[in-house]
Amino acid sequence: MKEQARGAEEADLELDGAGMREMAGLVLERLVSQIEGFGEQHAAGDWAKAWDGGPRPIPGMGVPHFEELLDEVLERAKASFFTPGPGYLAYIPGGGLFPAALASFLAAGINRFTGIRAAAPALVALEEEAIEWLREGLGFDPGVVGVLTPGGSIANFTAILCAREKLLGPELRKGVLYCSDQVHHSVTKSARAAGILEDRQRSVPTSAALAMRPELLAEAIAADRARGLLPFCVVSSAGTTNTGAIDPLPEISEICRREGLWHHIDGAYGGAFQLVEEGRARLPGILQGDSLTIDPHKGLFLPYGTGMLFVREREDLERPHKSSAVYLPEDPGAGVFDPSHFSLELSRPFRGLPLWMSLRYFGLDRFRAALAEKLRLAGWIREELDKEEGLEVLEGQLTVVAFKVRGGGGEELMEAVNRKGRVYLSSCRLKGEFVVRICVLSFRTREPHARMVVEDVREFLKG
Amino acid sequence: MKEQARGAEEADLELDGAGMREMAGLVLERLVSQIEGFGEQHAAGDWAKAWDGGPRPIPGMGVPHFEELLDEVLERAKASFFTPGPGYLAYIPGGGLFPAALASFLAAGINRFTGIRAAAPALVALEEEAIEWLREGLGFDPGVVGVLTPGGSIANFTAILCAREKLLGPELRKGVLYCSDQVHHSVTKSARAAGILEDRQRSVPTSAALAMRPELLAEAIAADRARGLLPFCVVSSAGTTNTGAIDPLPEISEICRREGLWHHIDGAYGGAFQLVEEGRARLPGILQGDSLTIDPHKGLFLPYGTGMLFVREREDLERPHKSSAVYLPEDPGAGVFDPSHFSLELSRPFRGLPLWMSLRYFGLDRFRAALAEKLRLAGWIREELDKEEGLEVLEGQLTVVAFKVRGGGGEELMEAVNRKGRVYLSSCRLKGEFVVRICVLSFRTREPHARMVVEDVREFLKG
Repeated sequence: MKEQARGAEEADLELDGAGMREMAGLVLERLVSQIEGFGEQHAAGDWAKAWDGGPRPIPGMGVPHFEELLDEVLERAKASFFTPGPGYLAYIPGGGLFPAALASFLAAGINRFTGIRAAAPALVALEEEAIEWLREGLGFDPGVVGVLTPGGSIANFTAILCAREKLLGPELRKGVLYCSDQVHHSVTKSARAAGILEDRQRSVPTSAALAMRPELLAEAIAADRARGLLPFCVVSSAGTTNTGAIDPLPEISEICRREGLWHHIDGAYGGAFQLVEEGRARLPGILQGDSLTIDPHKGLFLPYGTGMLFVREREDLERPHKSSAVYLPEDPGAGVFDPSHFSLELSRPFRGLPLWMSLRYFGLDRFRAALAEKLRLAGWIREELDKEEGLEVLEGQLTVVAFKVRGGGGEELMEAVNRKGRVYLSSCRLKGEFVVRICVLSFRTREPHARMVVEDVREFLKG
Repeated sequence: MKEQARGAEEADLELDGAGMREMAGLVLERLVSQIEGFGEQHAAGDWAKAWDGGPRPIPGMGVPHFEELLDEVLERAKASFFTPGPGYLAYIPGGGLFPAALASFLAAGINRFTGIRAAAPALVALEEEAIEWLREGLGFDPGVVGVLTPGGSIANFTAILCAREKLLGPELRKGVLYCSDQVHHSVTKSARAAGILEDRQRSVPTSAALAMRPELLAEAIAADRARGLLPFCVVSSAGTTNTGAIDPLPEISEICRREGLWHHIDGAYGGAFQLVEEGRARLPGILQGDSLTIDPHKGLFLPYGTGMLFVREREDLERPHKSSAVYLPEDPGAGVFDPSHFSLELSRPFRGLPLWMSLRYFGLDRFRAALAEKLRLAGWIREELDKEEGLEVLEGQLTVVAFKVRGGGGEELMEAVNRKGRVYLSSCRLKGEFVVRICVLSFRTREPHARMVVEDVREFLKG
């Protein structure tokens, strides 16, 4: 191996201990300073600097000063939605618990293979444990199984795939899927990916409260049966993105049972509220579906990258996923939690660690306290805005407070509040009308920010 | 908000700066010590401690000593395949570049939303830049687009979905997909998920070199056409998992062009070798397909969690994915890189950062040097083992060296080598026979480990 020596130094991508410590120290210092300053920043993000240069040439040589790279990233981060900030009440807020971020670092650093149980049984057991804690915390029966996904979209996709494989098999082109006209677009996109094309998707109209009308669902199912099609799946929402509306889950489950359909409940945003009493009261029937999506990177405040799907029957989740190959380690046996039996993925990040670390470090009670607080804060905002004659606050049960400005002016209101920079709101259009949304879900959004949003809305109204 | 005060402390999940620094310091110290000691550990992992307790009860209260949690994770990690170690030559080795692990920490800590370009344009631009560097480095024409996935399975799934949407539409149940009998099982699993069921998947026999036989592919296509079916996609391998065999890519592309089929090339393991001259010579035709999977967490040494798909025509990747919704920010316009236009995902981890940080910190030349070294090391191992009369080394062009022990004894050889603990090998079964595999792909596997594996195999043969 004479040639070896020539490139040996260049080919060495291992850093020495001192180098690793120095680089990590730089990241840590900057990151902690950033987080400490989150409360002081303008809630909208800083868009002053333009970044429109397009991709630069390939860097043949590296950049020896890691600090430069770090500073560039943080500078660029300024020009983004300030999702982790306490005043971020737009879209669905992000969280980013620090122990979870550390767990991502640790998981990537030790880089064990957690896609298959046999390759890291004691680590995969931590993932299983975290999923079990949430299963029990939500109130699901033992035996209900769960799997972690990169986000809610793939969780919803997986649910539709399970339903399709169970109920349609080779007749998949005849299968019809139902959701409300308020459904998240990831559902229709996922259904299409699973082979349920647009011609087999039905949008069921919603009530004034923006919840699916079960009698119209039943009619749509009957109409499709009359056409010789195979209704197989209803996707309902336990908290829509627009307004947090909750579909009538018990009625939909009843229809699905009667008709032999799979009931998937998309609780990507709202599902975590089932962990607290105050939330459970608003989510009747959330445990009665065949599957439930919950996004820990929403309601459990984790950094982006952790979605979750629960499925009532293990065999339904295994059916599309469990396989074997000559080069894989042996199957640990029936009934054992093995991520590769529940997912399209094989190599994957160790998603279980950030979730486990966060639940274990804080304990479930503190997550419950935080979720209960967000419900109270949103409830208080709703009450206060309801007192304003100039506003029409839409019905809503979770932590989205959506409202219209009577006689128009919603856009101006939102822009004025956002310009002020203490809180940041977003909007949507409902049946053609402009609706302002306030979504309380970041663990950093506390009482002062609730007061700020009410004050700033009032300031605009007083004009 | 009188109730607020009661739970306010419990609901506070923010840590103070000192707490964050302390916790991160603990993680860093342990992680760096671990990495520094990787070279000294038994290559097989330490399985002494049993971890079969099953999930523990829900932790209502948290664990105030973060150190305990950390130590538990590291203790559990011992009982796993030692994927990041220098002697790990089993399956497909893992890597875990330190700057990438740090980037995961940073990304989770700043927690910006990078699923949609408009939400973090300057950060998404870094992801675009990293993808562009690889596109150019591989030799793809400008305009070829790429997307990051959690791993190779979802990359392969995405490719099949693009092919299906382009070529089948509502006729999807008539579509037939072809791959060789050496294909990775994720391909058949992904095809099924995309609605191409087992009755529409064909396994094309391979040559003695375990490469797809193009004349049999052409025959299979003709037979399906005669049956009234719609051949639409061939998935070929640019480096199989079993032996690193490369399908005859130019011939397959030619057949696909003639027949109007999509040619997807699975280079999850082997594709990165296209970055170096020594690899290009072995991968003719790898740029001629309609799509190519490459796993940066394999050939670019990143921690688990980064796969990648390149697609020749932007519109083909956008077709199944691009959508709009009333609550999404505005589309930045045609031709702009936006992850949500290329993927089922919406919320997702900022996968681009670990890739960008690694490429930028080391520079592409050092990745090339490392890849060239792995090819040389595997070539040298192959030559040395070929000298052994007791072994039958299978054909292979990349960094998998697969061999049988003449007259049997492969299992004993593998077990003896693994027991010694300097290197760790795995096996597979090919046409019923036990085959030992050596896979050189970890950036930590250097010349000494190549020598060790040859020495330890020889020791067994002499024994």
